[in-house]
Amino acid sequence: MSPAEGNGPDAPESRVGVQRRDLFVAAGTAAVAGAIGWVARGATPGGSPDVSAAEATPAPAGPLLPGITVPAVPQRYVLVTAYSFANASDDELVAAARTAIEATPDVPDDSGALTVTAGFGIERARQIWPDRCAHDDLPAFANDVDDIVRGGDLLLQVCAETAAAVIDVAASLGQALGAGARPLWSERGYRDAPTPEGTARTPIGFVDGIVNPRTREEQNAGVWTDPDRGDTFMVVRRMFIATDFLALSTAQQEHAIGRRRDTGAPLSGGDTMDDVDLLAKAPDGTLATPVHSHARRAHPANIGRGLMLRRSYGFDPPTGAGLIFVAFMADPHTFTLTQRRLDEADDLIRHTVTDASGCFFVPGHDFSTA
Amino acid sequence: MSPAEGNGPDAPESRVGVQRRDLFVAAGTAAVAGAIGWVARGATPGGSPDVSAAEATPAPAGPLLPGITVPAVPQRYVLVTAYSFANASDDELVAAARTAIEATPDVPDDSGALTVTAGFGIERARQIWPDRCAHDDLPAFANDVDDIVRGGDLLLQVCAETAAAVIDVAASLGQALGAGARPLWSERGYRDAPTPEGTARTPIGFVDGIVNPRTREEQNAGVWTDPDRGDTFMVVRRMFIATDFLALSTAQQEHAIGRRRDTGAPLSGGDTMDDVDLLAKAPDGTLATPVHSHARRAHPANIGRGLMLRRSYGFDPPTGAGLIFVAFMADPHTFTLTQRRLDEADDLIRHTVTDASGCFFVPGHDFSTA
Repeated sequence: MSPAEGNGPDAPESRVGVQRRDLFVAAGTAAVAGAIGWVARGATPGGSPDVSAAEATPAPAGPLLPGITVPAVPQRYVLVTAYSFANASDDELVAAARTAIEATPDVPDDSGALTVTAGFGIERARQIWPDRCAHDDLPAFANDVDDIVRGGDLLLQVCAETAAAVIDVAASLGQALGAGARPLWSERGYRDAPTPEGTARTPIGFVDGIVNPRTREEQNAGVWTDPDRGDTFMVVRRMFIATDFLALSTAQQEHAIGRRRDTGAPLSGGDTMDDVDLLAKAPDGTLATPVHSHARRAHPANIGRGLMLRRSYGFDPPTGAGLIFVAFMADPHTFTLTQRRLDEADDLIRHTVTDASGCFFVPGHDFSTA
Repeated sequence: MSPAEGNGPDAPESRVGVQRRDLFVAAGTAAVAGAIGWVARGATPGGSPDVSAAEATPAPAGPLLPGITVPAVPQRYVLVTAYSFANASDDELVAAARTAIEATPDVPDDSGALTVTAGFGIERARQIWPDRCAHDDLPAFANDVDDIVRGGDLLLQVCAETAAAVIDVAASLGQALGAGARPLWSERGYRDAPTPEGTARTPIGFVDGIVNPRTREEQNAGVWTDPDRGDTFMVVRRMFIATDFLALSTAQQEHAIGRRRDTGAPLSGGDTMDDVDLLAKAPDGTLATPVHSHARRAHPANIGRGLMLRRSYGFDPPTGAGLIFVAFMADPHTFTLTQRRLDEADDLIRHTVTDASGCFFVPGHDFSTA
């Protein structure tokens, strides 16, 4: 499965295409990081943390963590897998994760930036890093299916520009975790071609991730529990959007979302990246952003907290549309508050069910025990 | 489904993002073409056929037909649908196809180059264009499943850089075909990030499409029945690669394919794009390109005809890996001869089954009846 063979000096083709990725660890850097990655092109051979050189879009000046803030425009493919380590001690879990995280798979040049991000189940993380992880796991939500798969001791997120790379790397990392790891669920997702703003359309055809923290100030407020450490919480949920939503007219879908389908612009007016004006009226006197629209229900002004950083991927279930919701935040309660509002009334979310869900602590620049 | 509403002068957001695609019809140009397309970026407003300006990779100097030779590097997504028009006359079939082909869907800028390619079932095409289509349909092959879906009166191939665009456009074209059209099968596929050579990896992780006609001479020899008309035959097959192939070691897979998995280079040596040397020996004296390897069995030297132009896409079945094989050729017999050799012995193809198959005549620059 691994393309690792044949790159020694005796392999005549080793000059072609495949070079060992330069491992980069973000600013600060310990030998072992909770989130690490490789840059396929433009990486500095000396291992300098100047990762932004590899990206057309400048990275923000805050923590640069692979699969979270690097690359700034997420890669086209992801593979997330939640593992149970039910019979492993905390030390064994950390050791297994460390082994997987320290692996440096060789991937072809066409794989683009390869990143691996590791998160630890909240219960475990509270035991391992009690001074860094003091939050509770997510509660149940209204759109969870009865037999939802929740939690997990370890989540691995592998991102690359090719499906082939995430499949290969995720498989080899899974093997590196050893026999104690039992996959609870796994899903491969894709992002459509990026829009000029670096966002992407989900499989329902609407632009997603418009309201996202992009500046250092926004990310410090919403993403990191501690910007120096780069610690954050990762919420991952596998959602299914039913065919009845897809069968709606474009106008009905836009009414449910609160944004135009073609441009992503708010129904309250302006361009794609302009703020949603919750007070704006339509010509007929009704609210331009409908009362139960997703843009209104999920609006951060109703939550009163910093913005979570969403980095979701689509997938294609046999019917309907699929979304691997991925978000990074300083406090999982930001997600809980938001989802509670969507559970109450939301013309998109009422067409969805979620069958896998977890909240994971990501020890940013390192995960040595405190 | 169509994002067509709201682009009139009374729509305040119409300045944002979505502009009507400039329809382009390839060199020569009739009002109606068998293969047409839109270029999302860099299109010349006057509708000049200078389509290569939109592409980083220069197009060959031969016929420029959307979804076939334009763009030179295929877009990331496809949606193919084979339709039956069992109760329609030839005139009604042509009229329906013309309606779909002449539709000019609005798509967002992030859709990239949008192309629509239409092919007509061989039996129909022989009646409609007897002097241009004189070939027989494909025979059955050994890896066809018993209940394979074959043929169809019309095939539509929609390609774009986003899944959202191909879904929307294919749906609106399907509606435009009218009630006489019955979909026989449909599949959405993707191509991984292009390699530096413009090829891509399939879901089994090997680079595909390396041996392809790229020069005008090669394309005239292998692709077009008549380069002036741009007529060609399109073979489309939905294949499933079983999990037992995926479970093989990398070395075993390379032995079956006859190429390195990392670079795509032939096992006989050299770089990715170098010719396979069928006579080269491995250090142990065996043939470097194994006797039953796909690279040897499918090698064009064994067929003795011009190269077909392959433009395949992957998809993800519930198990194994999927490939929408798409190829354009001057004579369908080129495919038949090749597939017969694979049926006899091929260490990749023996792991596959095909459950949908068709050969379609593509009337290139126009499809007015002769």
